[in-house]
Amino acid sequence: MAAGDAERLDAFFDRLSLSEALRELLELPSDDRRTVLTLISPDIAAGLIEEAPHEVGANLMEDLETDRAVEIMDELDSDVQADLIGDMESEEAEAILGQMDAEDAADVRRMSEYEDDTAGGLMMSEVFECADTMTVSDVIKVLAKDDDDVDRYRGQHPYIIDETGKLVGVVSLRGLLATKRTARLTTIMVEPMSVQADATLSDLEDIFDKYAFLGVPVVDADGGMLGVVSRDAVSQALLERAESENLKLQGVVGDELRTMPTWLRSRRRLAWLSANIVLNMIAASVISAYEETLVAVIAIAVFLPMVSDMSGCSGNQAVGVTMRELSLGLVRPKDAFKVWLKEISVGVINGIALGILIGIVAWVWKGSPALGLVIGAALALNTMLAVSIGGVVPLVLKRIGQDPAVASGPLLTTVTDMAGFFFVLSLATVMMPWLVLR
Amino acid sequence: MAAGDAERLDAFFDRLSLSEALRELLELPSDDRRTVLTLISPDIAAGLIEEAPHEVGANLMEDLETDRAVEIMDELDSDVQADLIGDMESEEAEAILGQMDAEDAADVRRMSEYEDDTAGGLMMSEVFECADTMTVSDVIKVLAKDDDDVDRYRGQHPYIIDETGKLVGVVSLRGLLATKRTARLTTIMVEPMSVQADATLSDLEDIFDKYAFLGVPVVDADGGMLGVVSRDAVSQALLERAESENLKLQGVVGDELRTMPTWLRSRRRLAWLSANIVLNMIAASVISAYEETLVAVIAIAVFLPMVSDMSGCSGNQAVGVTMRELSLGLVRPKDAFKVWLKEISVGVINGIALGILIGIVAWVWKGSPALGLVIGAALALNTMLAVSIGGVVPLVLKRIGQDPAVASGPLLTTVTDMAGFFFVLSLATVMMPWLVLR
Repeated sequence: MAAGDAERLDAFFDRLSLSEALRELLELPSDDRRTVLTLISPDIAAGLIEEAPHEVGANLMEDLETDRAVEIMDELDSDVQADLIGDMESEEAEAILGQMDAEDAADVRRMSEYEDDTAGGLMMSEVFECADTMTVSDVIKVLAKDDDDVDRYRGQHPYIIDETGKLVGVVSLRGLLATKRTARLTTIMVEPMSVQADATLSDLEDIFDKYAFLGVPVVDADGGMLGVVSRDAVSQALLERAESENLKLQGVVGDELRTMPTWLRSRRRLAWLSANIVLNMIAASVISAYEETLVAVIAIAVFLPMVSDMSGCSGNQAVGVTMRELSLGLVRPKDAFKVWLKEISVGVINGIALGILIGIVAWVWKGSPALGLVIGAALALNTMLAVSIGGVVPLVLKRIGQDPAVASGPLLTTVTDMAGFFFVLSLATVMMPWLVLR
Repeated sequence: MAAGDAERLDAFFDRLSLSEALRELLELPSDDRRTVLTLISPDIAAGLIEEAPHEVGANLMEDLETDRAVEIMDELDSDVQADLIGDMESEEAEAILGQMDAEDAADVRRMSEYEDDTAGGLMMSEVFECADTMTVSDVIKVLAKDDDDVDRYRGQHPYIIDETGKLVGVVSLRGLLATKRTARLTTIMVEPMSVQADATLSDLEDIFDKYAFLGVPVVDADGGMLGVVSRDAVSQALLERAESENLKLQGVVGDELRTMPTWLRSRRRLAWLSANIVLNMIAASVISAYEETLVAVIAIAVFLPMVSDMSGCSGNQAVGVTMRELSLGLVRPKDAFKVWLKEISVGVINGIALGILIGIVAWVWKGSPALGLVIGAALALNTMLAVSIGGVVPLVLKRIGQDPAVASGPLLTTVTDMAGFFFVLSLATVMMPWLVLR
């Protein structure tokens, strides 16, 4: 393609919002994607890579020539660089790191070792550092400079570092403006709040909730400055966590987008579904054990899926509320009993209400009051069980270190299916004389 | 309680993170909640009210004496004030507005009329406004003042307003610091990006994605300054949207927390569940129509719930991916056909894989290859249908102006249940001669 095409592409992508531009890019066949990312200006390409979900961004980078990938990398903040490198195949990652500026590459290597969703994984190494020997006027000169570095600080306050690299203070804009220019920074600095590299996303959320800071510095065990976590990075990470929980509760594990290869999407979804098939078989074996009862009163077969489905829905509501309260920090795993008390009170009311409803339906539909009683009682009992399981299971999974978003649903469904079938069929077996009368 | 208690309470809540403090508060009986919110200092109380989900915060405010509620209101930003007033019963809201500063109350009234999740609903009216006659030195004096107002601007840049209230420019910090102090602001201002009050959350997301701004001004049709939407307000709104979608996909409509009254929680959940019972009955009527087939081959009853459940899961995965792509802006309602093509390719692979798996299970378990064929073929077909429905239904709902998070799940389940039962039972009816052989 000619140079004119590159300019036209730049103009085209620049006119769109980042999400529109990314949509256009991802709709192209993969060869064209590579061509576009090679032709457009590196800062526009960097914007697109950053806008894409991590895994997709890493795939796009892997497909590029190393030279080009390095050009794009140079436009990104160090926290994004580290995320991308962490998500890339190690061969491509090494090739890119090898051609980057040695100091930047060392930063990225260091940063990609931290866990995602910790202060270390979320911080950027571009820090507005000032030596403790500087004056107000020195800082104002830096701020007034029309310089790429200053842009990268994104409104950070100046952090004061002593000669050993230790963070000793922070200076507010108001402090800078209200003090005479010859004053040393050390005379107006205040002691900064800081976190260790292993501070969790929830710790950071708590800090930014409570204080209006735009960033919080990350230090090592000796107080040495490592980087800064911005409020924005924390917001992004919280949003990504909520969206990935959304997906996991629906049975999608991993960052699936429809632009990924069909086989990969298929394999990932199947992994979760085949585990589910086993759980389903366990539940179905309960029906199998009661085939005689079923043959005698075949109308029951009509209500078996209804009972298990309805109580599954009640249980899912409880899972949803617990997951939300967990993410808001309003419940902890050890509150399981309190949560159960709150759930069972709703479960008793809803169980009785739904039981009466479905009982009347069964009675009227099949003309058998005994059948209505069996189905209604089974649904009532199973609803109480379902909300108990749904409310408590995510807390238990969290406590034993499992991801509640992945496993709560399948566990809940299996137990409520089994119990639902058992309640209906065992009650029907007991009530058999009245059921077959009609 | 004595004054000493108030101080001890302040110290207690101040030591905790906001989410911990809110948890402690919400665990109290409602009388004690009121007492605590009345005794602690208004700014701590304001922090707690703001940390709580909107609806909960509004309830807490309604329970307070009006005087106290007004004291707490005064500590909050106007966007939070407007959200709270919007969520309160109109009687309590009017009582509070009546005792607030008249100008603030007018702002809140005006702001609470805008839709949530639009620029008008997200903006705050505390704006760092500067007259176009001011000089650099005037602004620096304002910034250097140790003043509550300046804190409320939260790092906003100074916006330049002409004598008619029209927004004419914005000044960067660098501009202020690099220019001599006698310069008029109009000589260094640049034209600001701005949005109208009805700009959507997605519009705002696009702007903050593309530009590193901390805030964007909101103007009326004539360019008159209305307020500023901060990057942070947009991040918060996106997070709340993702969390409420999470809940709605699980069948919880409304901002449920377990501290709400049992009856309210019960009623809201029941509303959704009873709609579901009707849909379930429609699906169950398919089974009812085939009772003869079922009696002849009772083993089928074991697999009916399995087939509908497994395909429901496949469909939910497709719903999850579509919901995520919608929220990332990567698909639009009109992309339904493209999405279907992507889904059906996964559906064919997974349908065949799961069909073979469950077919072998049925064959081995019940010793009938014909049964295996019926169940396997039904699951394969129903999986393909389920992913098609799951992938496309959220887009269709969105297009017709319905909330895809609320309705996708029930619609999907009903169709996959009906179709699953129909595939199994009609195939079984056709295959009857081979099925009853055993």
